[in-house]
Amino acid sequence: MEWTREMKYRTLEDVTSEEINRLINKVDKAPWRQTYHIQPISGLLNDPNGLVYHDGLYHVFYQWHPLGAVHGMKYWYHLTSNDLVHFKAIGPTVKPNHHYDSHGAYSGSAIVVDNELKLVYTGNHRTKQWERIPYQVITTLNNNTTADKRAFVEGPPAGYTEHFRDPKVWYDSNRNKYYAVIGAQRVNETGTIVVYESTDFKDWQMMGELKTDYKSFGYMWECPDLFNIDGHDIVLFCPQGIDREGNRYRNIYQSGYLIGSLDFDSMTLSHDEFEELDHGFDFYAPQTMIGEHGERILIGWMGLPDIEYPTDVDEWAHCLTMPRTLSVRDDQLIQQPFKALQQLRQSETKQSLNVTSNPKTINEMTGTHYELIVKINDNQSNTFHIDLRQSEDERTRLTYDATSQQLTLDRSKSGVLPNGVDGTSRTTKLTNPLGTLQIFVDTSSIEMFINDGERVMTARIFPKDSSDQITLTSEGGDVSLDMTKYDLKGDIICQNYTQSEKH
Amino acid sequence: MEWTREMKYRTLEDVTSEEINRLINKVDKAPWRQTYHIQPISGLLNDPNGLVYHDGLYHVFYQWHPLGAVHGMKYWYHLTSNDLVHFKAIGPTVKPNHHYDSHGAYSGSAIVVDNELKLVYTGNHRTKQWERIPYQVITTLNNNTTADKRAFVEGPPAGYTEHFRDPKVWYDSNRNKYYAVIGAQRVNETGTIVVYESTDFKDWQMMGELKTDYKSFGYMWECPDLFNIDGHDIVLFCPQGIDREGNRYRNIYQSGYLIGSLDFDSMTLSHDEFEELDHGFDFYAPQTMIGEHGERILIGWMGLPDIEYPTDVDEWAHCLTMPRTLSVRDDQLIQQPFKALQQLRQSETKQSLNVTSNPKTINEMTGTHYELIVKINDNQSNTFHIDLRQSEDERTRLTYDATSQQLTLDRSKSGVLPNGVDGTSRTTKLTNPLGTLQIFVDTSSIEMFINDGERVMTARIFPKDSSDQITLTSEGGDVSLDMTKYDLKGDIICQNYTQSEKH
Repeated sequence: MEWTREMKYRTLEDVTSEEINRLINKVDKAPWRQTYHIQPISGLLNDPNGLVYHDGLYHVFYQWHPLGAVHGMKYWYHLTSNDLVHFKAIGPTVKPNHHYDSHGAYSGSAIVVDNELKLVYTGNHRTKQWERIPYQVITTLNNNTTADKRAFVEGPPAGYTEHFRDPKVWYDSNRNKYYAVIGAQRVNETGTIVVYESTDFKDWQMMGELKTDYKSFGYMWECPDLFNIDGHDIVLFCPQGIDREGNRYRNIYQSGYLIGSLDFDSMTLSHDEFEELDHGFDFYAPQTMIGEHGERILIGWMGLPDIEYPTDVDEWAHCLTMPRTLSVRDDQLIQQPFKALQQLRQSETKQSLNVTSNPKTINEMTGTHYELIVKINDNQSNTFHIDLRQSEDERTRLTYDATSQQLTLDRSKSGVLPNGVDGTSRTTKLTNPLGTLQIFVDTSSIEMFINDGERVMTARIFPKDSSDQITLTSEGGDVSLDMTKYDLKGDIICQNYTQSEKH
Repeated sequence: MEWTREMKYRTLEDVTSEEINRLINKVDKAPWRQTYHIQPISGLLNDPNGLVYHDGLYHVFYQWHPLGAVHGMKYWYHLTSNDLVHFKAIGPTVKPNHHYDSHGAYSGSAIVVDNELKLVYTGNHRTKQWERIPYQVITTLNNNTTADKRAFVEGPPAGYTEHFRDPKVWYDSNRNKYYAVIGAQRVNETGTIVVYESTDFKDWQMMGELKTDYKSFGYMWECPDLFNIDGHDIVLFCPQGIDREGNRYRNIYQSGYLIGSLDFDSMTLSHDEFEELDHGFDFYAPQTMIGEHGERILIGWMGLPDIEYPTDVDEWAHCLTMPRTLSVRDDQLIQQPFKALQQLRQSETKQSLNVTSNPKTINEMTGTHYELIVKINDNQSNTFHIDLRQSEDERTRLTYDATSQQLTLDRSKSGVLPNGVDGTSRTTKLTNPLGTLQIFVDTSSIEMFINDGERVMTARIFPKDSSDQITLTSEGGDVSLDMTKYDLKGDIICQNYTQSEKH
């Protein structure tokens, strides 16, 4: 099907309930539906938006185009949760129903102001000549609907192009002020972050750019975030237009962070080198929030723009990553699975193994959605492999090379491959020898936390359901390891999620 | 032929001289080539640019896409003249060879600063994602080439969209400052004019908008101009997106003026209603300059965007209007043919006629390029018609209705018609009863000055060469009039113009 502009920019009001039901039913029967990840009931999911914990409730939104697996008219799909594990699906709460967001309610964030939930996002407006005018919009969330859309920046400021979006807001109690970072493209076609401040959350002043050592690093920076963990200032952003450098910057767009120290008065960040947040294939546009216990939690989009995914033909695409808790260790950002996810664990299987050059399939550990914890006790090998979602003709292979201390995720035999991706493997060099792996496998994804959060590798995979084995092999010596597998039961998420949509 | 984006944005360096020669030869043999109007040797002409009189020489530039009758990569084509009647063709002087104008050297103006000729224009830059970034560029004209392109506004200022262009600059000797007006689209999709000032022609400050009573009058104002005639402040601009109102605003885009009094400190213009500059079919994007004798001279583009012209298939389109001298009479802007054009007159034929209901063809007055002066001595008719470029099956009809005091230009039988035009006639109500007509006919155009410049009606027409008669008829009573016809010889223009290109 050819998606015309008119088809892409239909709203939910433009389609019949029959068409929507047909879509939802088609997607419901589609292959590769996830069991415990947040995924769209139809259409396309992208950036997580408006993450906030307020009044005992987590709110998670995502960018949503309901009518097919293309980037068209965008809504904010809304879910709430008491624990960030079990979700209630609310539906499309932020709708493109205003001049400001006439062509999409684009990405943004949430904040509590005077006990009200404020959503701050980019309204995507197109003129009759189809030129983009971005509005930075504030709206109030009330009973799961929005009221009073107000723009505090209309169009790009002088010196910036139409690519001016993704406001992330926070309150600084020391300065008693609200701040927003916004992703921007300078007119010289380099990316940057622009900072705004407000004392009353109504009038906002542009403070200028956040100054970093990266003066010309890609043509646009999307989805900025700025926060402090244990005295470390951390800036997240997604630069577009970075060329590959060996094993770095392999995906079409990057998502990473700078860590250092921010001088707020001069808005200058002293920082280490840009590091990617995830070393897999499918990770972009993350956003963070403060959780129930004051921890910094990150959720990402498990997908990328401009890539063709095998689910597209079934009119759905993408999911969110599992939430990750952030911390700092040795000046590095550490990402660990959000603790409460352990509630999803259903049955435990443990094994202590000696991995040799003779491939060993763990018959007690099969499945398509589980958590696998691997603890290396002794590694005498040159390389060793863990094959997941394995069958006679498919496998998703993790390979650790002890000499180079590199871990490789190879999805060349993972099943159907997305189109438009550079290569079929991703490799990352670890800071320490491989000690632990904590791997979340779902029907069509894998998220691998390495060395207790030192690295993460995330990928969508599209294997057959019958590819459900785990096989281990080593080369050049044996590996002694403990493996623990938990089946994960996320039906509650999916059930609620789907049900609330079907009425 | 389908014009792809790549084809449209080729530069002259991207094509062989064979291709250019083929184009020029094809156009040279094409029908409807003008004899005394400035027209392109190939490709598309649009806005007049950089009009200036300096050191005894007039400079006239126009927007030029050399490679076909579409809006593609734009150059400034350059002509010079001692008298604004006979021209020397210099060639494409302002070239899209810089980052600022990588996708076209768009419209602008000229000014003499410290005895140097400065060109001030909009560089059209497109990003890799094909988004427009307009740069306001200053360059110095030296030996018919440009040096030192410098941008004084980079991208649109805050509150405006990418439609920010067409700087018209002048020097105000009372204030000892340089000024520029720039056409702009606000982010709320209304048109306006933004004013800049400079003391040294290097650093420019934005002063804000020119304030008029038209707060929401079309979605974009192109090609602004601002000048004073005999104590009257006059603002020209071309609003886009004005709906038709009866006989007004019939063309796809409008070109008109406000006349009144400008308070410079508050930049507020007190003014009469917006009036169209021309009441024909094909007039847009005019620009003015001060002539040799201090007079205000206007030249327009005899064409409009988004209309398909019959010459397109032969890979050329459009011409400039004849220069017009501006003055003010009864608070109305008056446009008269530039006096020196009389140099083009070759042979004179005079007749005194009584026009009756019996159609009268003036056998002594045939031709396809001439000037015709009609003086009404006594008009007893209800309506009377002057048919120009007439033959058995073609005519371009002027009809005057004495009761309603309306003049109509009807090109329904003028030959091949442009596509995409609303209707085939244009009507204007005169302030005074019809007294005189001064009409310039060329191979494919007619420019009619009414009542000594009270109104002008301009149209391209595409008749057969053999449609060369003049016929008069009246209804309801006789008309007594004098007619004077001059053959016009403009070969010198065309010869030089073409020759300089062919070497």
